[in-house]
Amino acid sequence: MNVLNKLGISDELADMLISEAVKKAKELGVKVSIAIVDEGGELKAFKRMDGAPILTIEIAIDKAWTAVSFGIPTHEWYNMLKDNPPLAMGFPKIPRLIIFGGGFPIVYKGQVIGGIGISGGSAEQDMEIAKNALKKLES
Amino acid sequence: MNVLNKLGISDELADMLISEAVKKAKELGVKVSIAIVDEGGELKAFKRMDGAPILTIEIAIDKAWTAVSFGIPTHEWYNMLKDNPPLAMGFPKIPRLIIFGGGFPIVYKGQVIGGIGISGGSAEQDMEIAKNALKKLES
Amino acid sequence: MNVLNKLGISDELADMLISEAVKKAKELGVKVSIAIVDEGGELKAFKRMDGAPILTIEIAIDKAWTAVSFGIPTHEWYNMLKDNPPLAMGFPKIPRLIIFGGGFPIVYKGQVIGGIGISGGSAEQDMEIAKNALKKLES
Amino acid sequence: MNVLNKLGISDELADMLISEAVKKAKELGVKVSIAIVDEGGELKAFKRMDGAPILTIEIAIDKAWTAVSFGIPTHEWYNMLKDNPPLAMGFPKIPRLIIFGGGFPIVYKGQVIGGIGISGGSAEQDMEIAKNALKKLES
Repeated sequence: MNVLNKLGISDELADMLISEAVKKAKELGVKVSIAIVDEGGELKAFKRMDGAPILTIEIAIDKAWTAVSFGIPTHEWYNMLKDNPPLAMGFPKIPRLIIFGGGFPIVYKGQVIGGIGISGGSAEQDMEIAKNALKKLES
Repeated sequence: MNVLNKLGISDELADMLISEAVKKAKELGVKVSIAIVDEGGELKAFKRMDGAPILTIEIAIDKAWTAVSFGIPTHEWYNMLKDNPPLAMGFPKIPRLIIFGGGFPIVYKGQVIGGIGISGGSAEQDMEIAKNALKKLES
Repeated sequence: MNVLNKLGISDELADMLISEAVKKAKELGVKVSIAIVDEGGELKAFKRMDGAPILTIEIAIDKAWTAVSFGIPTHEWYNMLKDNPPLAMGFPKIPRLIIFGGGFPIVYKGQVIGGIGISGGSAEQDMEIAKNALKKLES
Repeated sequence: MNVLNKLGISDELADMLISEAVKKAKELGVKVSIAIVDEGGELKAFKRMDGAPILTIEIAIDKAWTAVSFGIPTHEWYNMLKDNPPLAMGFPKIPRLIIFGGGFPIVYKGQVIGGIGISGGSAEQDMEIAKNALKKLES
């Protein structure tokens, strides 16, 4: 019988991504929340750095969920929506869907195995922090 | 072991802020709801003045929560969003986030120790009422 | 045209009830949240005493709401439910309905004009605090 | 002006509690989720061990929240409820309130500074894992 083979986020990988993200956030001088979800969108690991605002909890988790939920980085949503009025009017209200930067799918051997979400800096800083953590995975 | 030192809203402080807000609202001739939350965003004290509409309950509480949740006054959100289309499209739908004036963090010795939210007047009146109450804290 | 004449909770009455409740809670040595709602169940005034747990916020508000929602004290629900299995199975899950002591309708000249909810002590203490505040209204 | 002095969970403390919990869970041969919340009940850090079921995510977080929300371990709720029918019928439905073992307040110098919740083993195993982590804090 045919079954699917999936790859998933391990404790080791989640720890590495979070510690890389914290390192980069400290370099940038921002206090962020970092969420790692598995390929089903369920929380695997989370850290809110000392002093990061509470609003960042929900946004970081939802960015990670959004990235996994469609397999694309959260900042790509705006480009897909902006010239299509029905989508632009309808998509932003979908619960948990975050359409600005800071959420990325975690891709390994061509498979989406999870998502990472960062919140607390500007969208650009959040993206830089996430990309820096993911770079470690590629190497 | 390392722990964080925080300051929080006392009964005395909450009472003072509400009575100052009521006094100012009466001066301006508006009927408002006033919400005080602690630094975790949880309700500490609330008053809806006689005749203030029921819609003001939720908005006042959510303004206070919003102010604490990111550590900035609610009226600053619009300026952060207006020239950034993805943020402008994405942020307003975040549950409880109020992006117009009337919510302020309560800051004491450089720490956010809570939030105040006013609803019932125009955004400008709500802001004036909140700022007037907070001025008392500074003195 | 026939319209209804209603009586409602005033600022003055809400303040009196809250300060009587605080006084009694201090006498009993408990830290409670006190919620006052109007005859429509909407929040009129609220205070969480210094040190009262955050769980008491929601329970106090819901007790006040429950008291107004059917016009009876919250502790009477259990007696109405206990010998009637379908009610006992079905009522407790109704959102916001609290079936233990500490919520009372505020009755004036035979009309329910609001509700008071206390949470933080035992059910008996919460009831005593509420009843003591309401006694003041009768006098 | 009177303000409250509070203590809070630091990154360092949250990391220590999670790594102690993971160590004990491995010793016991169970796969658990571990949640750490601050004194306002907001998520500070989280880990779901490899292979821990997804139901454990919400339960661990809600156990930690419950412990903070009333300042007592989650397993004490059952004893408070079991001989009091109205409470027994009414409390279990309160959203997020978990009334079985595995959630503990994190107490430091007599203050509740946060909560820890464990889910994935039996209630007894979850409690053992949490208590073992907290023992480290006392020493």
